[in-house]
Amino acid sequence: MISTYQATCQARVDGALNSLFTAPAPELARLYEAMRYSVMNGGKRVRPLLVYAACEALGTPAEQANGAACAVELIHAYSLVHDDLPAMDDDDLRRGQPTTHKAFDEACAILAGDGLQSLAFAALLDDRLSPQNEALRLQMAMVLANAAGPAGMVGGQAIDLGSVGKKLDQKALEFMHRHKTGALIEASVQLGALASGRATAQQREALKTYAQAIGLAFQVQDDILDVESDTQTLGKRQGADIARDKPTYPALLGLDLAKAYALQLRDQALEALRPFDAAAEPLRELARYIVERRS
Amino acid sequence: MISTYQATCQARVDGALNSLFTAPAPELARLYEAMRYSVMNGGKRVRPLLVYAACEALGTPAEQANGAACAVELIHAYSLVHDDLPAMDDDDLRRGQPTTHKAFDEACAILAGDGLQSLAFAALLDDRLSPQNEALRLQMAMVLANAAGPAGMVGGQAIDLGSVGKKLDQKALEFMHRHKTGALIEASVQLGALASGRATAQQREALKTYAQAIGLAFQVQDDILDVESDTQTLGKRQGADIARDKPTYPALLGLDLAKAYALQLRDQALEALRPFDAAAEPLRELARYIVERRS
Repeated sequence: MISTYQATCQARVDGALNSLFTAPAPELARLYEAMRYSVMNGGKRVRPLLVYAACEALGTPAEQANGAACAVELIHAYSLVHDDLPAMDDDDLRRGQPTTHKAFDEACAILAGDGLQSLAFAALLDDRLSPQNEALRLQMAMVLANAAGPAGMVGGQAIDLGSVGKKLDQKALEFMHRHKTGALIEASVQLGALASGRATAQQREALKTYAQAIGLAFQVQDDILDVESDTQTLGKRQGADIARDKPTYPALLGLDLAKAYALQLRDQALEALRPFDAAAEPLRELARYIVERRS
Repeated sequence: MISTYQATCQARVDGALNSLFTAPAPELARLYEAMRYSVMNGGKRVRPLLVYAACEALGTPAEQANGAACAVELIHAYSLVHDDLPAMDDDDLRRGQPTTHKAFDEACAILAGDGLQSLAFAALLDDRLSPQNEALRLQMAMVLANAAGPAGMVGGQAIDLGSVGKKLDQKALEFMHRHKTGALIEASVQLGALASGRATAQQREALKTYAQAIGLAFQVQDDILDVESDTQTLGKRQGADIARDKPTYPALLGLDLAKAYALQLRDQALEALRPFDAAAEPLRELARYIVERRS
């Protein structure tokens, strides 16, 4: 089941991540502590799971993708730290714990986020975590830089901030999500495929379709949970999106159609995986989990 | 003279940088505009100059180092954008112009800085800007990640923030500067040497000594200028360091000894370059310029 697989992936990536937060000098202890706090927080590690599952779907042991798994989680973590800042979403809680700028201070949170981004590239490039040959590692670093950058995740956050209080149509909302969360999810799957060292162009294309579908499904489900779940289950304030007048799928389509849309995206994802054998089962399980999860 | 060489480097890197800020979609226009604003500001491009000069010192045309030159300037620019934020140094002026969060807004400045860091890696890895082979490009990306990250520049900013109002001794002050500004200056020289594709280990060691000396000299001179120059020449508030009770060399050593120390560091830098021929003249000129500049 996905929960066992997820726990295995979580333990694997947490082991690799944990090694990255040892301060090289006592003067740097607080910064490293803030980075560790921002990352080692019991997160579900959905993106690392995608990296590992894509790597395994191509018949390569997941451990080969440790560098990529760490990298996407570090990028994700830094984006949350900055997203929670007072000038951005101004959130006090993240996974039920004080956000980094609350547990430390704002300046420290800005720097911890900045440091985590550099660390993501360092982890991906490190041959102890990424045993791929130089050409592959280089290609992986390019994928990460593009997905994390202004044409990817950061761009999505900029669009998101610019659209508070605006009435977005579905196309505009999806354009935002394809950047804000979709780019890194797609990159996770691509990085896993690259890390395997044996993905054909056709397989990478199929995995791209899969990733785009589950990326969107993840977001639709997030919006649904923001309406339906409670603060304790969610680990963040329930109704936070509505309170901010952020555009959401339930607001746009109604709750029932939003749920139907999430299921449709799940089916698209599963269809894209048809050419793959049983090794792709974790990817399939994840597609199902995304629309079934309650937090 | 250095001013001619500097103008040539500035035009070269500005040409390469300018190509990076075209928004791929209208929704991303403001973010790209904010990034462009933060970078294309008439900056002196000291770090790109170092990249180019190190590359040329080894007999390779400077154009080979365009990717590295862009990368270090993008990292530098992002660090200034975040450094100027209200939660950090809270500066309104940078090079005589409103800082990014003043010209745009705080959230946009945080995201522009984040995007510039990703863009730095993308530029360095891009084979149109970095024609080096894969092994070299990978090595260059590692140098950048380490210099920019928590064990380098970001770590230095964390130490700096933690030391406001504290009485640092010279050793602690230099530890801070070696990270905050030194790491990226050292990386600039190393990246230029790597980009040349022909640096021996001995030459890289000599260039490291050079870079460490001018990095420190740059900082000592900055502190001196903060005491001696006026706001208009400096393009930022004169006396800003003193007003914040930041530790400085003049405060620590007195103005005369600080000046003598800057000259001593210049001489160390020139000494390290002794094994190099006339191709290293721009590096030598820069060492002289750093301690003679008035802004």
